[in-house]
Amino acid sequence: MNPNNIWQKARIAVVGCGAVGTYYGARLAKAGADVHFLLRSDYQQVRQHGITVYCHHGDFVLPQVQAYQSAEAIGPCDLVIVAIKATANEVLPKVLLPLLHENTAILTLQNGMGNGEFLAEHFGEKRVMGGACFVCINRLSPGVVQNFRHGLIALGELDGRPQQRTRDLVERWQAAEVPCQLEESLNALLWRKLTWNVPFNGLAIAAGGMDVSGILADAKLAELARALMHEIREGAAAEGVQIEADYVDFQMDRTAVMGPYKPSSLIDFQQGRAVEVEAIWGEPLRRAQANGLPMPRLEMLYTLLRNLCRR
Amino acid sequence: MNPNNIWQKARIAVVGCGAVGTYYGARLAKAGADVHFLLRSDYQQVRQHGITVYCHHGDFVLPQVQAYQSAEAIGPCDLVIVAIKATANEVLPKVLLPLLHENTAILTLQNGMGNGEFLAEHFGEKRVMGGACFVCINRLSPGVVQNFRHGLIALGELDGRPQQRTRDLVERWQAAEVPCQLEESLNALLWRKLTWNVPFNGLAIAAGGMDVSGILADAKLAELARALMHEIREGAAAEGVQIEADYVDFQMDRTAVMGPYKPSSLIDFQQGRAVEVEAIWGEPLRRAQANGLPMPRLEMLYTLLRNLCRR
Repeated sequence: MNPNNIWQKARIAVVGCGAVGTYYGARLAKAGADVHFLLRSDYQQVRQHGITVYCHHGDFVLPQVQAYQSAEAIGPCDLVIVAIKATANEVLPKVLLPLLHENTAILTLQNGMGNGEFLAEHFGEKRVMGGACFVCINRLSPGVVQNFRHGLIALGELDGRPQQRTRDLVERWQAAEVPCQLEESLNALLWRKLTWNVPFNGLAIAAGGMDVSGILADAKLAELARALMHEIREGAAAEGVQIEADYVDFQMDRTAVMGPYKPSSLIDFQQGRAVEVEAIWGEPLRRAQANGLPMPRLEMLYTLLRNLCRR
Repeated sequence: MNPNNIWQKARIAVVGCGAVGTYYGARLAKAGADVHFLLRSDYQQVRQHGITVYCHHGDFVLPQVQAYQSAEAIGPCDLVIVAIKATANEVLPKVLLPLLHENTAILTLQNGMGNGEFLAEHFGEKRVMGGACFVCINRLSPGVVQNFRHGLIALGELDGRPQQRTRDLVERWQAAEVPCQLEESLNALLWRKLTWNVPFNGLAIAAGGMDVSGILADAKLAELARALMHEIREGAAAEGVQIEADYVDFQMDRTAVMGPYKPSSLIDFQQGRAVEVEAIWGEPLRRAQANGLPMPRLEMLYTLLRNLCRR
């Protein structure tokens, strides 16, 4: 890592210690970064036993981590990584405040669309970076996560082109054994990510509780997944984001190696937790509709999920 | 009733004593027709206690009915009313055989499409009539059914225009307090019926177990129900069957008075019984696709239901 990397000695907070926050925060902490985890229900467990990561390219344990029950106890940081469920965004204006100094950057790694805009509305666009995690990861129990497959993070700036801070953050994660890449357009990145989340997280629930191998094994469901991906491509194109047609093949191939992986939304659904229906399905639909684009399959999936996930 | 009505003294068999078979058979028996009920699991109960009908325009009990456990015990009839689930059609070639003489007519009152064709394939087109029941009806227990709302049967001939037998059967049911009407085209009738069954039976399951009032109460689900109806209209039009646009409004209005009615497919689904996925959703989709017509919403609903209903 470049010795001038601005995140070299940064104070970093991780808000939201589900699978993604725990894993990517633990990777930074393991590589020597000064990471502060804000926890709620998992606090006691993580405080006592630290974090355990099962990972397809090597397990590790951090027996002691800096764990907190309140943002006030953490205090101002240079970088705040937001990894709570998008359904809980309304707590962020209050929770993040004690973590900010004048130049604190905020990175959202949340699913779906609209999260960066929400943060920008409350804290100013200049602070906000966004990322997408291409990883099959589940939280097994408090402080224990398992990364089954893949692991890339892609990062970009909400208000435009990458800056020094974005490039340095990519390098920081790379130095922490996390494949990380820079994105010229955060909007393009999020549309690409949705080509997977929309069909697989959605059909996993709507088809009655199916892992991704079940979806791929049913020729009609697999075809429907592809049709949904093409709708997302059209939605992206209506915003000037070109996603090449063979990206659909790439996603299908990437999914084929995942085995019986349950998308996170299915696990949330099965465990009675909130599902990010608006961020993953509602927001891209509304954007496409604002562009006059009909998306019959996405609209139908959204309509079913809104009802399925509120019971 | 015209004294020359050909069904005046007919021997009639009812095969399949779920809600529809029991109700419409009981109406005929109550009006003096010679009706023979073929039962399986409900035999003992019906043999001992007869049939009880709760009906929005008057309850009645038939303390004794002609109940049988085998078609052989019934023997040849003039009219066989088929009201088993379409998912069990493969038993019909064997079950119906003992019920037929040279001129026996077969009337299918089953849900969806393809049932008349199936019977024609095995017993010849000339025998086959078809009908659609516009009724909110549930079987409460063996021999006990409840008709909540509506009740019309519409009847037609599989191979073309109504004949004397069709007209007389309409009159026979009318004389049994069943509103009954003649259809010039059975195919048109079945497409019309599907404008209701496709959205309401389907969304009731796919949206997570909703009665029709729940579907109507959610603006997006109600809009999706309308969109599905319009796809069915297009599928019908591709076969030369014109369904006027305001038939969709008629169906929505008709549904609004049903209250918290659970479509029969939802009850089947919730009770772990087979759902008529192919007859109601698969067959119209395949017909439309054969005409080069894409039906994205029907296709998606069919794909989800195929998976939901096999678990």
